[in-house]
Amino acid sequence: MTEQLDATHPDLVTVKVPTHWYNLAAELDEPIPPHLHPGTREPVGPDDLAPLFASALIAQEVASETYIEIPQEVREIYAMWRPSPLIRARRFEKALNTGAHIYVKYEGVSPVGSHKTNSAVAQAYYNHIDGVRKLTTETGAGQWGSALSFAGAQFGLEVEVWQVRASYESKPYRGHLIRTYGGTVHSSPSTLTEAGRAILAKDPDTTGSLGMAVSEAVEVAAADPEARYALGSVLNHVVLHQTVIGQEAVAQLALVEPDGADIVFGCAGGGSNLAGLSFPFLREKIHGRSNPRIVAAEPAACPSITRGEYRYDHGDVAGLTPLLKMHTLGMDFVPDPIHAGGLRYHGMAPALSHTVELGLVEGVAISQHDAFAAGVQFARTQGIVPAPESTHAIAAAAAHVADDPREQVVVIGLSGHGQLDLPAYAEYLDGKF
Amino acid sequence: MTEQLDATHPDLVTVKVPTHWYNLAAELDEPIPPHLHPGTREPVGPDDLAPLFASALIAQEVASETYIEIPQEVREIYAMWRPSPLIRARRFEKALNTGAHIYVKYEGVSPVGSHKTNSAVAQAYYNHIDGVRKLTTETGAGQWGSALSFAGAQFGLEVEVWQVRASYESKPYRGHLIRTYGGTVHSSPSTLTEAGRAILAKDPDTTGSLGMAVSEAVEVAAADPEARYALGSVLNHVVLHQTVIGQEAVAQLALVEPDGADIVFGCAGGGSNLAGLSFPFLREKIHGRSNPRIVAAEPAACPSITRGEYRYDHGDVAGLTPLLKMHTLGMDFVPDPIHAGGLRYHGMAPALSHTVELGLVEGVAISQHDAFAAGVQFARTQGIVPAPESTHAIAAAAAHVADDPREQVVVIGLSGHGQLDLPAYAEYLDGKF
Repeated sequence: MTEQLDATHPDLVTVKVPTHWYNLAAELDEPIPPHLHPGTREPVGPDDLAPLFASALIAQEVASETYIEIPQEVREIYAMWRPSPLIRARRFEKALNTGAHIYVKYEGVSPVGSHKTNSAVAQAYYNHIDGVRKLTTETGAGQWGSALSFAGAQFGLEVEVWQVRASYESKPYRGHLIRTYGGTVHSSPSTLTEAGRAILAKDPDTTGSLGMAVSEAVEVAAADPEARYALGSVLNHVVLHQTVIGQEAVAQLALVEPDGADIVFGCAGGGSNLAGLSFPFLREKIHGRSNPRIVAAEPAACPSITRGEYRYDHGDVAGLTPLLKMHTLGMDFVPDPIHAGGLRYHGMAPALSHTVELGLVEGVAISQHDAFAAGVQFARTQGIVPAPESTHAIAAAAAHVADDPREQVVVIGLSGHGQLDLPAYAEYLDGKF
Repeated sequence: MTEQLDATHPDLVTVKVPTHWYNLAAELDEPIPPHLHPGTREPVGPDDLAPLFASALIAQEVASETYIEIPQEVREIYAMWRPSPLIRARRFEKALNTGAHIYVKYEGVSPVGSHKTNSAVAQAYYNHIDGVRKLTTETGAGQWGSALSFAGAQFGLEVEVWQVRASYESKPYRGHLIRTYGGTVHSSPSTLTEAGRAILAKDPDTTGSLGMAVSEAVEVAAADPEARYALGSVLNHVVLHQTVIGQEAVAQLALVEPDGADIVFGCAGGGSNLAGLSFPFLREKIHGRSNPRIVAAEPAACPSITRGEYRYDHGDVAGLTPLLKMHTLGMDFVPDPIHAGGLRYHGMAPALSHTVELGLVEGVAISQHDAFAAGVQFARTQGIVPAPESTHAIAAAAAHVADDPREQVVVIGLSGHGQLDLPAYAEYLDGKF
């Protein structure tokens, strides 16, 4: 029987699941600026964060170790779908008429179809350890909310999700997914919270924003001693959890491209996907093993890196969160209701913003039209329908390599699939944007 | 860096992609009864089938070799997602309070989210070799139609799909997916064909059926010398292509369970998924290496194996196809519009029906309610939301092993994911069935 099996598998390379998360901050000469208390403007301490976050996550937020061990229980869940594949996109290369070797690191194989489960499982685990009964959270397109609902189901935690209204209405399937995992989901702003009611009083027709949904989820968690809040991006501990992506990608790439990556593209909304992918590549750069450029592809409708200011700002619209040093369009910025709901965030992860300031990461803004054009081309060549968020990275990479005969090694972070975003593809195909 | 990588990966086992398809018929003492010409009732010859099918596919329909080589071009596309994972479902086992070792062979990792691509790519390839310009086909839930559209895009073939009306209306996302790959999609019955118009004249409110959609697609292909028809299940060549599933599963299982499988469950609509999974397990049985039971889980609303007759019948409702010896509820049978659109077919693959008659495969009928109850339990434990079709196999397996401490080895064919079927899950959660 074995003689019937292929001896080679040229386009899928496999490595083991990492046992540790990688903490880039520990290897940088300049530390990430601390988060500040919104009242005192002094660095927040563990006590300030304790009502909202599990103790281990608070420690990870300011960790100084380079590697932090992934608990066995978390690794067992990761092993349900990790390592995620690194796929050589040969048909896409051909369509682009390029000499580049294009690899996509594909997180769409996770149960919920995106990278979000990498942090959701870790956060649910640490809250479970702390005896928490319920987690509240916000979600844009619904990727994070469904990931946390899945993770909550693994540890017997109740999960309550506020989904940005624009996405709640245009992407009902993700709400069904949250419920299938046993979670509950509300349209945000909702009448369930003071923050939501205040926003609705001012602007009843608002399309919502991640900043508003954060305010609602934080308010509910803060008022319930058995509940805590979980954030799907932005914070250092979320970025940390996502480094499983980049560690696998670096190891996978080493099996087929001995000189490593020349350039890495990822989409950036809150920043955790790109940071999780790129920080292990920056480790390679810091240690002189390769010298990759890192490109953050953000939507032209919400360009925090390319058009925002680098300053302290709140993570939410009600000003309940600590002040974060980041690239921001301002806490009140409400982006157009583009289909890439996961990229509609006014700020950017402080850890990623810091690497931008250090010259390690650069930004590029992509229009929604260009993003979907690349997404359709990718689907028709490689089969995978990318999440609207991920199409931004694909478009940026395609523009970089098209009709260029150089054999550069390109890595694209494919943060998730877009099967629940197909109405957006239909709108694009119908010429609506 | 490598010391940061896990040395073991207990729940995902990997083998190579098969280089050949496995033809069980060549190893059986009694041959599969031949297909008959609908006019003469004599066995159909290659000339009868040539207007509809590529020459290589016609040859595969009556192949006598045990192994048929998979063309390199097809294997290169398979390698984009194959081998599909065999996953030990430990959390599902725990929820079922069973000693059984449950493995799921998961085809949802394919670009379109189901096993259908295994045959779609092969059929598109052989038609491309024959110089065909366009393929027509039917689809139920839309899995096959989207798979063929993806496959057509790989070889520059136009693809036109008739989707059963009940699914076209309740599952619009799969129509969007077909279009994203560049295909076109019509609700069936349509006014574009004589068959469709005749059905609509008789019953304008029909929910449609696979048999009707077959008639429409066959009619269009037969009238266009540059077009051919592609069938997503039932025929011997489709079953053959799907044996990559079972070959991988047998090899993967051998790495962790030296005695092989005790029992294999798969859902059965047209039969290609279950046959593709189970025939390599029957090879193990024939050669005395193990002795697995094979169970076909079919919907109570369309129980061709458990309630149908074994006789010659048409594959479609208009009587355009050859007569097939199979378990059938009659070509005019219109099942209730259950959510498992892929299982709403009046007949069963002749190859699979033949193994039922030989006592190698047994059937069990599952209600839609029980199927979705198992699907939700599986989603909450293992993360993967199963396709409605696949939930039938999960429910049958769960009923077999629940509260049974015996350490039997169970394989479940998970033919696809159900992310595009989430409204059906919402209806179940709302208590609507």
